[in-house]
Amino acid sequence: MAQSLLLLLLLLCFTVSTTTSSKLPPLNTYFPRSASDASLFHTQVPKGPKINYTTHYFTQTLDHFTYTPKSYKTFQQKYLLNSNHWDSLSGPVFVYTGNEGDIEWFASNTGFMFDVAPQFKALLVFIEHRFYGESKPFGDDSHSSAETLGYLNSQQALADYAVLIRSLKQNLSAEAAPVVAFGGSYGGMLAAWFRLKYPHITIGALASSAPILQFDDMTPWTSFYDGVSLDFKEESWNCFDVIKGGWVELMALSEQKEGLMELSRTFKTCKDLHSVYSARDWLWTAFVYTAMVDYPTRANFMAPLPAYPVKEMCRIIDGFPRGGSKLNKAFAAASLYYNYTSTKTCFNIGNESDSHGLHGWDWQACTEMIMPMSCSNESMFPPSAYNAKESGDDCLKKYGVLPRPHWITTEFGGHRIYEVLKRFGSNIIFSNGMKDPWSRGGVLKNISSSIVALVTKQGAHHLDFRFATKDDPEWLTQQRRQEVEIIKKWIDEYYADLKKSSI
Amino acid sequence: MAQSLLLLLLLLCFTVSTTTSSKLPPLNTYFPRSASDASLFHTQVPKGPKINYTTHYFTQTLDHFTYTPKSYKTFQQKYLLNSNHWDSLSGPVFVYTGNEGDIEWFASNTGFMFDVAPQFKALLVFIEHRFYGESKPFGDDSHSSAETLGYLNSQQALADYAVLIRSLKQNLSAEAAPVVAFGGSYGGMLAAWFRLKYPHITIGALASSAPILQFDDMTPWTSFYDGVSLDFKEESWNCFDVIKGGWVELMALSEQKEGLMELSRTFKTCKDLHSVYSARDWLWTAFVYTAMVDYPTRANFMAPLPAYPVKEMCRIIDGFPRGGSKLNKAFAAASLYYNYTSTKTCFNIGNESDSHGLHGWDWQACTEMIMPMSCSNESMFPPSAYNAKESGDDCLKKYGVLPRPHWITTEFGGHRIYEVLKRFGSNIIFSNGMKDPWSRGGVLKNISSSIVALVTKQGAHHLDFRFATKDDPEWLTQQRRQEVEIIKKWIDEYYADLKKSSI
Repeated sequence: MAQSLLLLLLLLCFTVSTTTSSKLPPLNTYFPRSASDASLFHTQVPKGPKINYTTHYFTQTLDHFTYTPKSYKTFQQKYLLNSNHWDSLSGPVFVYTGNEGDIEWFASNTGFMFDVAPQFKALLVFIEHRFYGESKPFGDDSHSSAETLGYLNSQQALADYAVLIRSLKQNLSAEAAPVVAFGGSYGGMLAAWFRLKYPHITIGALASSAPILQFDDMTPWTSFYDGVSLDFKEESWNCFDVIKGGWVELMALSEQKEGLMELSRTFKTCKDLHSVYSARDWLWTAFVYTAMVDYPTRANFMAPLPAYPVKEMCRIIDGFPRGGSKLNKAFAAASLYYNYTSTKTCFNIGNESDSHGLHGWDWQACTEMIMPMSCSNESMFPPSAYNAKESGDDCLKKYGVLPRPHWITTEFGGHRIYEVLKRFGSNIIFSNGMKDPWSRGGVLKNISSSIVALVTKQGAHHLDFRFATKDDPEWLTQQRRQEVEIIKKWIDEYYADLKKSSI
Repeated sequence: MAQSLLLLLLLLCFTVSTTTSSKLPPLNTYFPRSASDASLFHTQVPKGPKINYTTHYFTQTLDHFTYTPKSYKTFQQKYLLNSNHWDSLSGPVFVYTGNEGDIEWFASNTGFMFDVAPQFKALLVFIEHRFYGESKPFGDDSHSSAETLGYLNSQQALADYAVLIRSLKQNLSAEAAPVVAFGGSYGGMLAAWFRLKYPHITIGALASSAPILQFDDMTPWTSFYDGVSLDFKEESWNCFDVIKGGWVELMALSEQKEGLMELSRTFKTCKDLHSVYSARDWLWTAFVYTAMVDYPTRANFMAPLPAYPVKEMCRIIDGFPRGGSKLNKAFAAASLYYNYTSTKTCFNIGNESDSHGLHGWDWQACTEMIMPMSCSNESMFPPSAYNAKESGDDCLKKYGVLPRPHWITTEFGGHRIYEVLKRFGSNIIFSNGMKDPWSRGGVLKNISSSIVALVTKQGAHHLDFRFATKDDPEWLTQQRRQEVEIIKKWIDEYYADLKKSSI
């Protein structure tokens, strides 16, 4: 979800500013594409000795919740299997509830499942989310309009998973095998919701960095950007201050004659900039994504980055002499995100604006996934408010349909979650790292003895799902160990119940 | 659901016999209409001092689970309110999750809610199920084809309830009021599923006579008719034997010259019979419905009947001298069901065959509500098997779509329910009376400390939901008392949690 959720943020946080400037292009044309970007990354993590799977396709129903003739249409849903370590008699089934992107990308970035498969003797299943990757119900036309995109949403996705898992277990003669759901980011929401809605299909869920409380009025709308800002401020006050001041300089520059030319030089763009907003988004993306993936080890999730990249960015900023252009310093810091490997001599900024296609997450963000966001005066971003009306109008213009802003909390709950789920449900781990700004919309306290929160102060966006490395800090190893222990407990309990019921 | 579920039974149990006789008319043409019949009854229980409410309409979304432009269509959903006893500051909201018929009919036959409202200071809300009564999304065209009927199903209905309740509480400034769901028969399934899927909307559910395990292979397919048969056999073996033998005589008569004429005389039909199957269905309906509503007091749910009507039917049969025509005796017993008030001089048998309209429950029984049934050799009905293929083909022919026979158990679970819900969920009462043949598909054992089964040996189809009367047996009064106590506990717990969370 990383990029896709971010896209939403940018959309939301910029809504106000766009209405104050008539020069701005339509919102969706100049943001880094999210769902489609996902496909860029999985190719960077090739299949190898640690990540391997076979690819399969399941004939899935288009619409589980109506019975119009059209709803019976089927499509091929992709899923990946790894049975290398599976004990088909007593091993569990670990299912990754795919989110908005190619399923290979999520498989590659969920090394945790591969790491623990041997000790659990588990079958691994990664299911691609409908309308992403190869799982497009209407082929190339899937994203062409609301007529087809209408079938892309979280409830249909959950039903897909239920139907596919039931069928798969039957085909493998593994009906009695316990299923544990895993998911990160939006996939983590899906995993948690899957346990809540389909407890008869899955015995528990590990939901990593799942901001299920980011909807409606449940979490302060400013919390995400305040979270990003805090990451930088905690490294150094100067770093925070430079970035905050950079936006002001940027906008001032844009009003100068030859300002865009100068900006093009400063930002080392491959082609001349046409809009200051391209540069703004470029910076914005770098700081937000880096906060999210502020991992304690080198990693290549959103982009190749060193360990503790926020610290590294601030080191760059703080390395400049006091005074001087804040924008230049901010640019230098942001370059780390785009060019850590020093392979680029210029930056391709603003060219994404040519992409006019409609994309899956944009659609979801315009219909069901309404997560209001704003930037407070205290954040390091330009202040902005959230305007539901304008967001809705933009969606209507773009897709011809209006958002249903209260639907997610009606369907999945969230309000008073600590009281509601204290008396209902079981077996969910909500893991969050506080460096990840999404953590603010997550479940950060234990709800009951079996719906628990694992929070790490230094963790970032579904860090626990990454392959273990020799450089992992002890707190991370410890978090993963806890997760394994809890999941073991669920499985043991399941088998004890099964034994008892068959006596 | 009484009649509608029964319709399904008849359909299923006769499937085989129809294929062995080419003389039979299409299945749906000669069964008593179910959903539409419902409208006949509520008029018999007029609003009065005990049953009163105001009528309201809510603008509801056609399709909650897709975002195609068409899904945004709205319709007016009817609901009834009774706030006579409501304490809007601390009283709960009791919601009846309407099933397949006019909501007034269910309100009239759920006196329990009116009886207990004063002591709980509760607001009563009865919500009509989409596509029934006045809540038809496409007006008179709603039932015309699968294009419109496609939106009639249980998941959409549950979502309707969630959306309506949330909005209603907001409009009444009663956001903090606890909601308890009530439902009988199919409405009982909905109430239980509503608690399972929407625990954030309802704190608990009283599901009366809800056969949620009647799907797939969870309950023996013969159990329903074995249950009906047992009711009669327990009254007297002769009674059981006469009815069982009656079918044989009936079919033998139909093969005789002038057989239909004789049958018309025997059955005192107002017009000559055109088919022996009309007489068969007439008998069948009487015995099955009477078993379902074998109440310990006079009642008028399906038809006006004396207390313990099965006993009365058997008294009629046993009152005849030994020997002689079994069919005549069966007819005399069945007449009790149709003419207890002795107002009829002839019976209108077989004229339902003129009704060719498509009806809501037929549709649901052809798409999602697939409850396989058969008649064993030991039942008092003609033996028959269940043939999924033929049922499916019939549905395809009738509506143009195929059933999804495993969907309900995929969406709502049911398999291994005792193990699954022992570890998940809370606050559901499953009440069942063992005289009701639907009880066999119900939850008959406690699942956990708060998901409990209240079973009465002498109870019948959602008997506990009827108004209390001075003639009620002690075990019934006791059952209702238990229900009240448990619901009180839920509400107390809710308020204690609320108080704790606000400190």
